[in-house]
Amino acid sequence: MSWIDQSIMARRGVAGGKAGAEHSLTEAAQGKYHYVYGPFAEPVLRVAPGDVISCETHDAFEGKIRHETDVPSEILNFPFLNPQNGPIYVEGAEKGDCLAVHIRSIRPRGPQPVGTTCLIPEFGGLVGTGATALLNAPLAERVKKVEVTAEGGVKWSDRLTLPYEPFIGTIGTSPEIEAISSLVPDYYGGNMDLPDVAPGSIIYLPVNAPGALLYLGDCHAIQGDGELCGVALEHPSVTTVQVDLIKGWTLHWPRLETADVLMTIGSARPMEDAARIAYRELIRWMAADFGFTEADAYLLLTMCGKVRLGNMVDPKYTLGASIAKRILDASR
Amino acid sequence: MSWIDQSIMARRGVAGGKAGAEHSLTEAAQGKYHYVYGPFAEPVLRVAPGDVISCETHDAFEGKIRHETDVPSEILNFPFLNPQNGPIYVEGAEKGDCLAVHIRSIRPRGPQPVGTTCLIPEFGGLVGTGATALLNAPLAERVKKVEVTAEGGVKWSDRLTLPYEPFIGTIGTSPEIEAISSLVPDYYGGNMDLPDVAPGSIIYLPVNAPGALLYLGDCHAIQGDGELCGVALEHPSVTTVQVDLIKGWTLHWPRLETADVLMTIGSARPMEDAARIAYRELIRWMAADFGFTEADAYLLLTMCGKVRLGNMVDPKYTLGASIAKRILDASR
Amino acid sequence: MSWIDQSIMARRGVAGGKAGAEHSLTEAAQGKYHYVYGPFAEPVLRVAPGDVISCETHDAFEGKIRHETDVPSEILNFPFLNPQNGPIYVEGAEKGDCLAVHIRSIRPRGPQPVGTTCLIPEFGGLVGTGATALLNAPLAERVKKVEVTAEGGVKWSDRLTLPYEPFIGTIGTSPEIEAISSLVPDYYGGNMDLPDVAPGSIIYLPVNAPGALLYLGDCHAIQGDGELCGVALEHPSVTTVQVDLIKGWTLHWPRLETADVLMTIGSARPMEDAARIAYRELIRWMAADFGFTEADAYLLLTMCGKVRLGNMVDPKYTLGASIAKRILDASR
Amino acid sequence: MSWIDQSIMARRGVAGGKAGAEHSLTEAAQGKYHYVYGPFAEPVLRVAPGDVISCETHDAFEGKIRHETDVPSEILNFPFLNPQNGPIYVEGAEKGDCLAVHIRSIRPRGPQPVGTTCLIPEFGGLVGTGATALLNAPLAERVKKVEVTAEGGVKWSDRLTLPYEPFIGTIGTSPEIEAISSLVPDYYGGNMDLPDVAPGSIIYLPVNAPGALLYLGDCHAIQGDGELCGVALEHPSVTTVQVDLIKGWTLHWPRLETADVLMTIGSARPMEDAARIAYRELIRWMAADFGFTEADAYLLLTMCGKVRLGNMVDPKYTLGASIAKRILDASR
Repeated sequence: MSWIDQSIMARRGVAGGKAGAEHSLTEAAQGKYHYVYGPFAEPVLRVAPGDVISCETHDAFEGKIRHETDVPSEILNFPFLNPQNGPIYVEGAEKGDCLAVHIRSIRPRGPQPVGTTCLIPEFGGLVGTGATALLNAPLAERVKKVEVTAEGGVKWSDRLTLPYEPFIGTIGTSPEIEAISSLVPDYYGGNMDLPDVAPGSIIYLPVNAPGALLYLGDCHAIQGDGELCGVALEHPSVTTVQVDLIKGWTLHWPRLETADVLMTIGSARPMEDAARIAYRELIRWMAADFGFTEADAYLLLTMCGKVRLGNMVDPKYTLGASIAKRILDASR
Repeated sequence: MSWIDQSIMARRGVAGGKAGAEHSLTEAAQGKYHYVYGPFAEPVLRVAPGDVISCETHDAFEGKIRHETDVPSEILNFPFLNPQNGPIYVEGAEKGDCLAVHIRSIRPRGPQPVGTTCLIPEFGGLVGTGATALLNAPLAERVKKVEVTAEGGVKWSDRLTLPYEPFIGTIGTSPEIEAISSLVPDYYGGNMDLPDVAPGSIIYLPVNAPGALLYLGDCHAIQGDGELCGVALEHPSVTTVQVDLIKGWTLHWPRLETADVLMTIGSARPMEDAARIAYRELIRWMAADFGFTEADAYLLLTMCGKVRLGNMVDPKYTLGASIAKRILDASR
Repeated sequence: MSWIDQSIMARRGVAGGKAGAEHSLTEAAQGKYHYVYGPFAEPVLRVAPGDVISCETHDAFEGKIRHETDVPSEILNFPFLNPQNGPIYVEGAEKGDCLAVHIRSIRPRGPQPVGTTCLIPEFGGLVGTGATALLNAPLAERVKKVEVTAEGGVKWSDRLTLPYEPFIGTIGTSPEIEAISSLVPDYYGGNMDLPDVAPGSIIYLPVNAPGALLYLGDCHAIQGDGELCGVALEHPSVTTVQVDLIKGWTLHWPRLETADVLMTIGSARPMEDAARIAYRELIRWMAADFGFTEADAYLLLTMCGKVRLGNMVDPKYTLGASIAKRILDASR
Repeated sequence: MSWIDQSIMARRGVAGGKAGAEHSLTEAAQGKYHYVYGPFAEPVLRVAPGDVISCETHDAFEGKIRHETDVPSEILNFPFLNPQNGPIYVEGAEKGDCLAVHIRSIRPRGPQPVGTTCLIPEFGGLVGTGATALLNAPLAERVKKVEVTAEGGVKWSDRLTLPYEPFIGTIGTSPEIEAISSLVPDYYGGNMDLPDVAPGSIIYLPVNAPGALLYLGDCHAIQGDGELCGVALEHPSVTTVQVDLIKGWTLHWPRLETADVLMTIGSARPMEDAARIAYRELIRWMAADFGFTEADAYLLLTMCGKVRLGNMVDPKYTLGASIAKRILDASR
């Protein structure tokens, strides 16, 4: 029996974690992709809790960076970046509920080389940017195209093959009244660029608007902690997720479950605020659902909390804080 | 002759800085107030460059905090905070232009005590917040109502009267594709809470969407540097502005002109990034329009740049960096 | 009668604010200058409360940058930067006391051009640095020498003369057990680069070690808010201060008094923490000595607190938060 | 053959990574423990490269917190915290060299319960502090004493035993002219609180002063990422290290080697600056010693760099950035 059957989704979801109807959100079905997370776009699909949706996602550049001789700053047209599938309307979802999204698979799609990374002026973790606004000249632009297959991995160079470790870079629900760029991560998810949001895990998202209005896109073939240069190995994909709905579970920030850990996710600047958010949410979770006092949870996480840095490049930085399920189980 | 006649607005504006038709945006004319800066709302008014608009603004709480015994957290309904007048469509404004807004006057309106300040849980410059997420208990809530008149000033207590120094806390144009909470300041203006945005000054805003879509609200009767507790002396007002349009002047952040100074405004976290944005914009302005090399401007601002802290409490902190016009003039 | 006679120094100081013996700390008397604030160096002078000391200070580069063709990175030998006069042992000063330093005058000394500013690689407010560690290439180095006289001001260029507005860039007491680079500002003072530390003001410093062990140096002929490029207009000076001792007044951070304001000074990164420190100290001062509750002080500073940015370039950023004495007086 | 024989220490060290004489730095031999990292204390021991030193370390509280009813703020006497063994003078070490420290073992010592953690007012990752200076009341103080053995692990509670995962919380060399509190981490090491500094690893430290002047202490029995509440599971220990000397290898920040990874360590505030430092140092290392261009290293780390958060509670936050040796090897 898979851990999924014992997951929070399975135990508390409207569909009990059971898969329902299958939907295919092809490029044609999606039509126009979206660049904001908000309630103003018409849903492209309406699904029930339990339904499974396969999405044909674009890469973060909508496929416009094709050759290593391309110059990103000449091709990219801000703010029309990071195209998103959706919004997907989930029946019954209301403000104050939680949308569970079980990530079932991610596969590359399209002609090789399917992977793209690049250096973009004034963007990245080790350069001056629009926010860390400096007078230094930007680095030279650079495009690298990489062959990626699910089986063969990431052909970084003749000598070096990296594993294919795909995840969803950007996923979330709609804010209630705002429409925010898909480049931003925040309390509703969005551009978190957190490698744990990978096949096999379940992400739990706050519902802020009727139908939840799920968006997703920006799948990465592999990424290190921090997404250092600002651009992971971007690739178009077929990404398959199963949604479920947990009524009345009101989250303030995204949470994530795997076979082994529970994680909370914070996004903010400066980076310590992202860590504070993530850890405070984890403490509150341990207090609400696992019988800890806040002080006891605080002390225990001091000994065995784990932190994963998602991105240090987006408008807000993202970190996940986690605790092993076995420690929680042993604490009861 | 007023300095206004020599202002950038007068020299470069479509209307040459000359006042045109007068409009009145009363509560009734406004109807529904807005909680986001975005392109999705219908314009409440269409005006030509030069037109003068008098707006009946609400206070940041839409008048709901009436008594010192009120409990803010029971009354306020996030995200429906900081109601804004507008959007006002300015004929001819296109992405890449600049909207000039000359602030002509601000007067309190409504029954006394017209001024409100308060302590709200998890909000403010010296407490843990949703972003600086801590485990400490919040401060006790508190409401203070204050009599404010344009002539008599701010009756803070029996012993202490403070001057009436009104300004517009929140003003800006619409983003191109986003709709962002009126609690946020950013490149398009918004909730900057910068006391320099006061009667007599001209603020220059980037145009991102057709018609510019000007919003404003959140007038403050007085505020110190940083808006320390998160809530200035909020008051409903009649605020009168004159708009003009500078074609082809593409700003990346708001700028401000008074009789004596030129200022650039940055909003970001951490606070040093707001300062970096503001100063870099000022250097770029000096380089573009006043004949400086970037290095010369950098050195000169090291000697005589001035910084005004707007807010240290909003989702992004706001600072203005300025240089005296007489120094720019003497440098030519 | 000068406000000095009503100052805290006059009212609470051991010497009652009255001037005592005069001492001259010439270059010869000083001998070796110091690059750390600490208790390990022998006092160069022992004085009584009330005594007046005239110090021949070096500029921050110890006079080594002599020509505009000099290349700072070839001349400067980190950590031997920012040479300090002192330590001056003040009789009777013990941990937990406060050292009052009334700044009486600063005059330029030495051959013209006496003022120096420059661009140093990886140092400054708008470039990548050793802490904001980036991959961008540094700016070109640059030296600018400027004629400065107390009477004629700062001859910035043929066209532009700036006022002579001197202040002490670095001043403080010794930590108890640490010896910290004179490039750093912290709770004991140090490299605050705050223009308010100017002739006419009184700075109050915590005493951490026997004799207080006062150091000072790094006088600036003029400086804007933030010391933007990292190097103000540095100049050697004769700086005259009068010290006094307030027994049992235990400060946690420096404070400053002028005729018109009381200021508290915080140094930290990120910048918002410097602002938090400064404002919290001011609230605590208002609570301890002026009869406010913390909440009342918090609300009042929200309306009329003022912030001065000292530096945004040193290992910690420095801000001063202040309130007008007339407001404090009216509040009683 | 152990990886140690292929380590940088073995390949480049004066002693070739071979163990030399053994020394025992018992409590009695140490005598006075130290609270600063600096060049002013007499060396307690002089060793040759290759020598092995067993140190009896105190816990961070010098053993003063003995019972769960103790009140930390009444017992602890700032700045006399975090006592350090040393300084150990390493023959032949000069400024510009690198001191390699191979951590051979850490064992708990003293009567049970040997482990201590606690909540200290205004200290920790999720509370207002002296730097993030707020008005909220502090959390209640709390002491937890825990039985720790090398074999049986950490008896957190009747139900929960955590593994014994010891590491050195504070280790480093002396600055050249400064003496800095052992609570601070910085370029010379110090209070990094990074769990990777564990038995089996080699830490490489910059030499800034003659003899390197190695200090160490503050061993932790277990700690999560970030040392969340500010106090790991502190315990007195016998910690055994082997030193070696790499002449002319000039590091700017600490580096670490294990069987599997190379890591660079940065300490700064805000936290993103610690990440920037760590990653830039790693890029520079890859460029200097592994044949990468900076741009190539930047892109590769974007795909497979790993980040470990050490502390988010000390005066500077500490992060390690690492890359797998197998990836470096495959890249050649």
